[in-house]
Amino acid sequence: MTHETSTQIRLARRPEGWPTPDDFAIERVELDPLAPGEVRVANEYVSVDPYMRGRMNDVPSYIPPFALGDVIAGGAIGRVVQSAADDLPVGTVVLHQHGWTDVVQADASSFRPVPDVPGLPLSLRLHILGMTGLTAYVGLTAIANLKPGETVFVSGAAGAVGTAVGQIAKLLGAGRVIGSAGSAEKVALLTEKYGYDAAFNYKDAPVREQLPAHAPDGVDVFFDNVGGDHLEAALDVMNTGGRLALCGAIAGYNTTEKTPGPDNMARMITRSLTATGFTLAAYLHLSPEFTERMTAWFAEGEIAYDETVVDGIENTVDAFLAMMRGANTGKMLVRVMHGGNEG
Amino acid sequence: MTHETSTQIRLARRPEGWPTPDDFAIERVELDPLAPGEVRVANEYVSVDPYMRGRMNDVPSYIPPFALGDVIAGGAIGRVVQSAADDLPVGTVVLHQHGWTDVVQADASSFRPVPDVPGLPLSLRLHILGMTGLTAYVGLTAIANLKPGETVFVSGAAGAVGTAVGQIAKLLGAGRVIGSAGSAEKVALLTEKYGYDAAFNYKDAPVREQLPAHAPDGVDVFFDNVGGDHLEAALDVMNTGGRLALCGAIAGYNTTEKTPGPDNMARMITRSLTATGFTLAAYLHLSPEFTERMTAWFAEGEIAYDETVVDGIENTVDAFLAMMRGANTGKMLVRVMHGGNEG
Repeated sequence: MTHETSTQIRLARRPEGWPTPDDFAIERVELDPLAPGEVRVANEYVSVDPYMRGRMNDVPSYIPPFALGDVIAGGAIGRVVQSAADDLPVGTVVLHQHGWTDVVQADASSFRPVPDVPGLPLSLRLHILGMTGLTAYVGLTAIANLKPGETVFVSGAAGAVGTAVGQIAKLLGAGRVIGSAGSAEKVALLTEKYGYDAAFNYKDAPVREQLPAHAPDGVDVFFDNVGGDHLEAALDVMNTGGRLALCGAIAGYNTTEKTPGPDNMARMITRSLTATGFTLAAYLHLSPEFTERMTAWFAEGEIAYDETVVDGIENTVDAFLAMMRGANTGKMLVRVMHGGNEG
Repeated sequence: MTHETSTQIRLARRPEGWPTPDDFAIERVELDPLAPGEVRVANEYVSVDPYMRGRMNDVPSYIPPFALGDVIAGGAIGRVVQSAADDLPVGTVVLHQHGWTDVVQADASSFRPVPDVPGLPLSLRLHILGMTGLTAYVGLTAIANLKPGETVFVSGAAGAVGTAVGQIAKLLGAGRVIGSAGSAEKVALLTEKYGYDAAFNYKDAPVREQLPAHAPDGVDVFFDNVGGDHLEAALDVMNTGGRLALCGAIAGYNTTEKTPGPDNMARMITRSLTATGFTLAAYLHLSPEFTERMTAWFAEGEIAYDETVVDGIENTVDAFLAMMRGANTGKMLVRVMHGGNEG
């Protein structure tokens, strides 16, 4: 028998502002024998994502808040190591939302089998070939209706979503793609690896001062992962009829005081702009279309990616906090180490 | 010969913040004899509208700024008193954009004849049956896609656009319509005359504190004439999938300092909201549909309206400033007095 215990990271108290390790508890639990219909899955990768921060607050939102004591739910990928369900035999690779744990046991219906394609790292299902990539695709297509030749500005462009947005925008025919990131190294990556035509470091000077020089013909589509100063700067330069796909607002996720919004909202009217906030729930029907196109692009070598990998489920909180501080390039992942756990 | 002179109000200098009478110059000019193709029109009503304030600034926008020395352009309605154009004989009622003047002479192509329907005051073509009504209609239909049973919140509801929005919303099947206005008298009018289900005085307490009690089931459609605190308060209570039709932002039109935007823009994402700024230029194709429906509603006695009328073209600047301060109920108009000018 293997994987007899599960190390689980739970919400111990609600963070005020920036989370600290004390807001979480690591617990090791003995697993019961499988009930009929259940499987036991050994995770290989666990995802840490910005949106999880919102669920740590006791505020109603598009997904319910975590309860105190809950395991932090979220995307993860692993392999079935024990099965009492015919449709998920041992060895099946599965995606699931059971989150921050090394070993999870639950009804088979809560796991989704995915093909284990040789040469395709499993971790990609948690980002570029998964929800992250779909988020980029939905934002550019269904939300922003990107048209060939248009100029796109992406805030937080070196993150998991942003690196996908730049590449997909170019593949969809964008004329010019501009990105912001939080270090010189990331800025270099954007133009050298991710197909951005221009990029700047938002820590060098106010975004509002930097963006106009990079967008001499204005911006038609703004894909926003940051909010705050980025949204304000984008409104300054949006062309008439422009679209703003509001995907994330990480600038405000860990603030306890409310931050002032853009002082130029009247430009929404004078420039006939449309801003659309979105989450994936209403757009999952685009997943097959996305997967088909993205898999083809990937096979053609059109898609670059980065992963920032932290080893060990016990370091998940550190990985989450580092991601929130922007320490990652591309997707931040926790790689689960099962060595000591195998029987 | 009548109407030999034209009294014209011109932009003398660009206002800083609130305009003052010194920003304008009144000029009386002798009119030349008509050139072929020209007509001379004696205005009956001249419109003063919030959007004109934007054109007084030297800032590129959806319509170009006024040049210094320009007559303030805008909607007006009058009758042809001299004609050198076969298609606009003397007596024809015409709508035009020649603005703040009592008598205007120009090529016939810049005037649009409208039927002079007995019992239908000409002034209505400048508001409820004109651009004002069309603005309300477009905002609720093409922009906000109002669905029967939904809750609508209208800021600045006692203004020319707002009084139209409330009534059209109810006629289109809105479930609950809530309005804000700037005095107890206006608040009473909203519920007693304009079909609003609830209304409040935004000067009594912060909008953010007042709105939730009036919107127990949240708001699906926000029709914004004000911006600022109203937009922020609306974001607080918008239901998932809600639409914001951003029509005006009078709160910021006369401020010299930038005002902070909404501190809750992240709700755009968590509530999957769409905000669309609009001006009429892109929606004039809806004018025939609007005119047909509005004329029918009007004939059925479904449409109430108010006019705040100031007499005398020389008082147009006062009327404009009073409107910007919210002194009007319904549409603010200048009635042109031709008594002393007739030969």
